Amino acid sequence: MSYSAPVKDYLFNIEHLANINHIASTIPAFEDAGLETAQAILEECAKFNEGVIAPLNVEGDKNPSYFKDGNVFTTPGFKDAFQQYAEGGWQSLQHDPNYGGQGLPKTIGAAAMEILNSANLSFALCPLLTDGAIEALNTAASDELKKIYLPNLISGKWTGTMNLTEPQAGSDLALVRSRAEPQPDGSYKVFGTKIFITYGEHDMVENIVHLVLARVQGAPEGVKGISLFVVPKFLVNADGSLGERNDAHCVSIEHKLGIKASPTAVLQFGDNGGAIGYLVGEENRGLEYMFIMMNSARYAVGLQGIAVSERSYQHAVGYARERVQSRPVDGSIKASAPIIHHPDVRRMLLTQRALTQGTRATASVAAAAYDAAHHHPDAQVRQENQTFYEFLVPLVKGYSTEISQEVTSLGVQVHGGMGFIEETGAAQYYRDCKILTIYEGTTAIQANDLVGRKTARDGGEVAKSIAGLIEKTEAELQAAGSDAAKAIARELAAARKAFLDVVDFVVANAKADPNAAYAGSVPYLLLAGNLVAGWQLGRSLLVAEKLLAEGHSDKEFLEAKIATARFYAEHILPRAAANRDAIVNGAQSVVGLPLDAF
Amino acid sequence: MSYSAPVKDYLFNIEHLANINHIASTIPAFEDAGLETAQAILEECAKFNEGVIAPLNVEGDKNPSYFKDGNVFTTPGFKDAFQQYAEGGWQSLQHDPNYGGQGLPKTIGAAAMEILNSANLSFALCPLLTDGAIEALNTAASDELKKIYLPNLISGKWTGTMNLTEPQAGSDLALVRSRAEPQPDGSYKVFGTKIFITYGEHDMVENIVHLVLARVQGAPEGVKGISLFVVPKFLVNADGSLGERNDAHCVSIEHKLGIKASPTAVLQFGDNGGAIGYLVGEENRGLEYMFIMMNSARYAVGLQGIAVSERSYQHAVGYARERVQSRPVDGSIKASAPIIHHPDVRRMLLTQRALTQGTRATASVAAAAYDAAHHHPDAQVRQENQTFYEFLVPLVKGYSTEISQEVTSLGVQVHGGMGFIEETGAAQYYRDCKILTIYEGTTAIQANDLVGRKTARDGGEVAKSIAGLIEKTEAELQAAGSDAAKAIARELAAARKAFLDVVDFVVANAKADPNAAYAGSVPYLLLAGNLVAGWQLGRSLLVAEKLLAEGHSDKEFLEAKIATARFYAEHILPRAAANRDAIVNGAQSVVGLPLDAF
Repeated sequence: MSYSAPVKDYLFNIEHLANINHIASTIPAFEDAGLETAQAILEECAKFNEGVIAPLNVEGDKNPSYFKDGNVFTTPGFKDAFQQYAEGGWQSLQHDPNYGGQGLPKTIGAAAMEILNSANLSFALCPLLTDGAIEALNTAASDELKKIYLPNLISGKWTGTMNLTEPQAGSDLALVRSRAEPQPDGSYKVFGTKIFITYGEHDMVENIVHLVLARVQGAPEGVKGISLFVVPKFLVNADGSLGERNDAHCVSIEHKLGIKASPTAVLQFGDNGGAIGYLVGEENRGLEYMFIMMNSARYAVGLQGIAVSERSYQHAVGYARERVQSRPVDGSIKASAPIIHHPDVRRMLLTQRALTQGTRATASVAAAAYDAAHHHPDAQVRQENQTFYEFLVPLVKGYSTEISQEVTSLGVQVHGGMGFIEETGAAQYYRDCKILTIYEGTTAIQANDLVGRKTARDGGEVAKSIAGLIEKTEAELQAAGSDAAKAIARELAAARKAFLDVVDFVVANAKADPNAAYAGSVPYLLLAGNLVAGWQLGRSLLVAEKLLAEGHSDKEFLEAKIATARFYAEHILPRAAANRDAIVNGAQSVVGLPLDAF
Repeated sequence: MSYSAPVKDYLFNIEHLANINHIASTIPAFEDAGLETAQAILEECAKFNEGVIAPLNVEGDKNPSYFKDGNVFTTPGFKDAFQQYAEGGWQSLQHDPNYGGQGLPKTIGAAAMEILNSANLSFALCPLLTDGAIEALNTAASDELKKIYLPNLISGKWTGTMNLTEPQAGSDLALVRSRAEPQPDGSYKVFGTKIFITYGEHDMVENIVHLVLARVQGAPEGVKGISLFVVPKFLVNADGSLGERNDAHCVSIEHKLGIKASPTAVLQFGDNGGAIGYLVGEENRGLEYMFIMMNSARYAVGLQGIAVSERSYQHAVGYARERVQSRPVDGSIKASAPIIHHPDVRRMLLTQRALTQGTRATASVAAAAYDAAHHHPDAQVRQENQTFYEFLVPLVKGYSTEISQEVTSLGVQVHGGMGFIEETGAAQYYRDCKILTIYEGTTAIQANDLVGRKTARDGGEVAKSIAGLIEKTEAELQAAGSDAAKAIARELAAARKAFLDVVDFVVANAKADPNAAYAGSVPYLLLAGNLVAGWQLGRSLLVAEKLLAEGHSDKEFLEAKIATARFYAEHILPRAAANRDAIVNGAQSVVGLPLDAF
């Protein structure tokens, strides 16, 4: 099933929800990055990914990366595709022009990243992790380190990795044991084992830049004693040429449920005397720096959820149009018909579609907030946008990836028995997406962030201010007055009230009864993610109705947006009340079963 | 992760929800099949499956069945295990004593079947399909055919298959093209291609008895022209010995997402002159007979959903007790603790547990109704139970399998990154279970049955009578008066009202606006399945409180049952209202997007 990037949907969001022209006109750094730029880039991006990257997706599943004698060999075609990716400048989109980047807003870059991930989740992970490494280095590293590493990372000549996890230290980074010994020349020798290192070893580029968490001797225990190091696979000479092979070696890669083309490496640092590493920023501030990378990656993993949902949806629609089976229940066709005529198949496809478009709309708005938070000239605007963005990140990561599991499962289901046959291709998305709710922080970790740092800490202020914005959209929808607008207003209001109940519950209990507050953390995240996506689709409906009234030429697209928004409101938003009840009424029953009784 | 059959839970259901002693005392055929028999059989069953069948589960995933030169070779160990299964008499449990069966009630047999499926879903499919073939032959075949085939199927010497699907005919059996030509000796020659034939070819037994749907020349078009044939792999001589190889050959097996040890065959009938087949019952009544088999198999697939959920739950609990990561949020432990201490992990485990126990309770009650429907001396009692059973079958099949996907997904999630690594074993359940909502009729097919034949046809009478029984349980719960009982009563009442709204909606629209009625068919099935499971757990709570008040010795089990029931009510039942809203408010939005706009 070929992939077709939904460029129109991105541009609608970028223009009307993220307000790209407002970004371009108010943020000097982005003055050339208006809608026309977005369109030019995304059309080129679509062409490249549809033609070059997407065809390698099935190939990567059938012929995964493999490990042999310390080397990792990627799927045939990946190396060449990565070279084209680099040459096309795709790695550089959002990065610092001082080091060769194009300096485009995230509002545009995120759409391009989603397209890449739809084309090929496994392939996209290499640029995704490299983006995180670039961002961390650019924010925290010395100018010297930046000069050595950033240009080659941004150009796609080298790639980057994140080395956090150890066998005993997953979500719990306090347990990191890797260690770093200072050397007289200012460098460090790094020792330890890191696991689950995505693209920790591969053959697509000449050098790999590992960012590694480790403890310097004598550092405090726990997360406050962790430092961040650059440990390149090959050392870099003063003239920029590659020097000796560093003592950082891949000893195996994992056999996984999905994203099989993406090598997940076990790396040994320092087995032969110590891997040479360079401190990023200051000692013991590693976790803080790693969170720069992590936050970038969390948002990007959210995009992965949307991306794989889009791909699964397209695959299912294609099959539903072609597969002929049974007569329509309404008697409209007197013979077996394509299954897209059956109401339950349409319900499944619309569920896929609405969840995908809803989460995409949220991600687009979050990206715009990021751009303003980082680049707006007015400090107060930056601050407001930063706060808004930070609230949205756990939703983009958590909700988009959780719904990707529902969407890809429906994608298999639409195919019936053929969905279970690997050659059909629908099952790959179902397998691939299962990691998305886990890596870069599980959904529960995102939800803890939402409960603790994003809601309880400010007494629910940001949460309630978002609810206030939603209430305004409800009023606009009521004023618009169409059946669809009123239906969305009604469902949004119910979901918003459920949200506010939960915010009150979380604020009241986060300290007084933390088990109760955190027992509902994931349902709270799902509720909030659902509400915000429904809100953005409500805004989309208002725009679409307005454009239609103005006689906009793309009637089909705008009417479809309205139908999708209404479906979302009527079918997905009602889940919010169920989440609310489980959180508020059900907190005690989560801890009601003694541990021994499980 | 070793498997431990939850025999105590089965016996609780069998004794208190299915009332086995009532069955034994009122149904002469089952006079020896009281609680003691159930206990003896299930303990033996647990031992056999834990020791012999369960250890082959991972092996089957790693070394699936494979096809070579027309033969299918099963996973090493399967053949020997199947022989032990047959020798232990496990295939014969529920079957007719006239042909060597043990004639036990389904109430006991279903529990044994669930244990077998927990041990090994792939292995269990062979007995599962054989059960269906036995039931169809016993109901519809001539005495002559019964004498030839039933004893060897019931003893496990031979196995059976169901041959419905063809490339163009999946859910839509009207499109079946396989044909049968009458021969002068009363037999038929069968021609055609059948796909997705579970255990259609294998090496575990000496003969395979295919039940095949085909059209006799001149038969009416559509489903009214389909006949059922017995087509053995090897013809059977008059003395019962095996004769010639029949013209029914496996040409390939599928490469699947899960249940990899279970061979899914493409069978060619009649490529070399015609496969010899024998008509079952009368011509053109094949679909009716096949539904005997299918109904047996649908219930059994529901059990598969519960079974794989149980296994996934046990796996996750085991990991959550051992994996140490992060401090508890309540400060109860001042160091990193086993993750079962974290509220979200407990929420996930309890969700798995509650869904598993709830669907198991429903299945147990359905089995008791089946037993009374088939064997009770009073015709009116039989009729009432038949009606009740028929309402429950789409719920057992549809709801138990849909929730298995949620349960196994949570099972992976509890494992974090390790869940994505195949060697951990959690992912196998997630892959295996994906077929359960598809084969033997997709969830939508079950839901159409629920909407059409089970709800609209009688104007909602049976549905409302079940709601009436639930209301009585609510009153008993209110009377019991504990916090847990009142919480369940409250949630049950809300879910019941949502159910009644939907029943009214379905009855009003099934003919007037079939697209609207069928747009909500799957959400209706989920709502009804949820309600009935919650109801049975409500009944379980009443029993548990009573037994505790009487000083029953197994306090831990009974208290856990109460805690699980309460969790179900507070966390799962609220979904009913969300389903209701989607069905009643959202029917039009399912068909609101033009087909071209997808």
